[in-house]
Amino acid sequence: MTDFAAITAAAERLKGHARRTPLLESPFLNEIAGRRVLVKPECLQHTGSFKFRGAWSAVSALPPEVRARGILAFSSGNHAQGVAYAAAQHGVPSVIIMPADAPALKLANTRAFGAEVITYDRAGGESREEIGQAVSAERGLTLIRPYDEPMVIAGQGTVGLEIAEQAAELGVTSGDVLVCCGGGGLTSGIALALEAKAPALRARPVEPEGFDDTTRSLAAGQILSNDRPSGSICDAIVSPQPGDLTFPIQQRLCGPGIAVSDTQALQSMAQAFLRLKIVAEPGGAVALAAALYHGDQIQGDAVIAVVSGGNVDPDIFVQALGTLG
Amino acid sequence: MTDFAAITAAAERLKGHARRTPLLESPFLNEIAGRRVLVKPECLQHTGSFKFRGAWSAVSALPPEVRARGILAFSSGNHAQGVAYAAAQHGVPSVIIMPADAPALKLANTRAFGAEVITYDRAGGESREEIGQAVSAERGLTLIRPYDEPMVIAGQGTVGLEIAEQAAELGVTSGDVLVCCGGGGLTSGIALALEAKAPALRARPVEPEGFDDTTRSLAAGQILSNDRPSGSICDAIVSPQPGDLTFPIQQRLCGPGIAVSDTQALQSMAQAFLRLKIVAEPGGAVALAAALYHGDQIQGDAVIAVVSGGNVDPDIFVQALGTLG
Repeated sequence: MTDFAAITAAAERLKGHARRTPLLESPFLNEIAGRRVLVKPECLQHTGSFKFRGAWSAVSALPPEVRARGILAFSSGNHAQGVAYAAAQHGVPSVIIMPADAPALKLANTRAFGAEVITYDRAGGESREEIGQAVSAERGLTLIRPYDEPMVIAGQGTVGLEIAEQAAELGVTSGDVLVCCGGGGLTSGIALALEAKAPALRARPVEPEGFDDTTRSLAAGQILSNDRPSGSICDAIVSPQPGDLTFPIQQRLCGPGIAVSDTQALQSMAQAFLRLKIVAEPGGAVALAAALYHGDQIQGDAVIAVVSGGNVDPDIFVQALGTLG
Repeated sequence: MTDFAAITAAAERLKGHARRTPLLESPFLNEIAGRRVLVKPECLQHTGSFKFRGAWSAVSALPPEVRARGILAFSSGNHAQGVAYAAAQHGVPSVIIMPADAPALKLANTRAFGAEVITYDRAGGESREEIGQAVSAERGLTLIRPYDEPMVIAGQGTVGLEIAEQAAELGVTSGDVLVCCGGGGLTSGIALALEAKAPALRARPVEPEGFDDTTRSLAAGQILSNDRPSGSICDAIVSPQPGDLTFPIQQRLCGPGIAVSDTQALQSMAQAFLRLKIVAEPGGAVALAAALYHGDQIQGDAVIAVVSGGNVDPDIFVQALGTLG
């Protein structure tokens, strides 16, 4: 089980290894949103996404002799890079199972970080879990799941610790914290950290329209799946359904989810370029999109949005800039 | 005269107003450069460039009754935005003299920050100094020069204070600090801060080819001018010649300058997008370009590069991404 003590312990292990990303604000974004918008740019984290935190947390928590045999992960890309880099920094091998249609940049980077990459056919119905477990058993590797893993949730929770401190410095102690949500590791980790450090800040998952499994699950009070396994421009945050560990945490602590369109994700990438000078990937921009374009679903004078990653291929980024007209 | 005490005093005035930008690093950039490259992304500063620091330093240092009459500045864009925002945050009016061919984004932003913008014809030989002085005398405004101004140099020097601290945390205490250089306010301010706080770190100006007035002036031991007043893609850092205040500081403290091509500036913008997830403008990317593509002119295991700004129009950014091939 992940609790607040696990998050503070993860923060200790991450010290000097993960970046403390700043909390940004632009008067132009505030004007669009009609309220203050504070942005936590985890795209500036090592490997270009928050996933490095959870990966480092999990790899660093393993007993040295277990870690030495190597790490295995399955991921559409950002978890892959985080695990590959965390393993390499610890001097141990890693094997990453990735969908064959993952963005070229993420596949290339994962290999460049020294990982062995095994691809599978996402649309064809191959199960990454089955492939992962088979390789894990065969080679004695330790599988680090992307979200349903207590040490990963604890690592992602350190984003929440920083938000609580940094928002207070900017005078914001209550309101919604919008979080890009796939399997829910980041959302549930942040929710646990806020519960302890800033109880008037409330985490809320944000998802792409058509892949809003967490939003619908929270509304229904039970875990529901997406109809399709892939097909969103927001590839980084598409997962089949909320996690068995992450969903109960979100159910207990999170506000309702918000779903945004692909166009809104692209528009908020362009605004992040223009006003914050950061590079967001589509899935990493959905929380900012909710802050900017779904203000009617938000209450309070200020909102916090996590930009969870920036690993986007240039052609998609050019498409996003095209929304500026 | 700007000295170290003026920089620490500016740092006090900037506290809680300017952002402490992080110091970023990517294994991919290290590989290109053949050494560690630490990047100080001042594009993440308020208004998208380091200029906010100098502007806030100067505006905040004025006697309240003088400040209340208003501020005047002349600038190709980043100083304009910095002064406009600093004035607005102090609740006082500002008038900004800008070249008519400045990037559309910078003109629009300066107006959006509440400044009155007066444009002039840069290629036609109009003197921004003469226009500025006339308006200043007429309205009782205080002119804040973009670089030859002690309080501005002191404000820019706070970048050097942060670099000294943050580089030491990453284990780097000696080597070159490459600085995008126009009139020399940032370079000389950083040089003064490093002299006191990290004497084995040495500031070096980086300029666009064809507009390398500071590089040539340092080599000649006297102030030399550029042949042309404009025409570089690196518009933000083109100035006629080194400043009367900034040049002696650079002469005393800085290493030799480096000139980079427009193509290299665009390539380093693309690398900053890909590897650091930050948005750099061409002039803001020249120091990183020197780190990546002029390693033969640099010594030591590590180099620090300041990305000085990110206020770039989307079409130029798309052009930069095109260099990725």
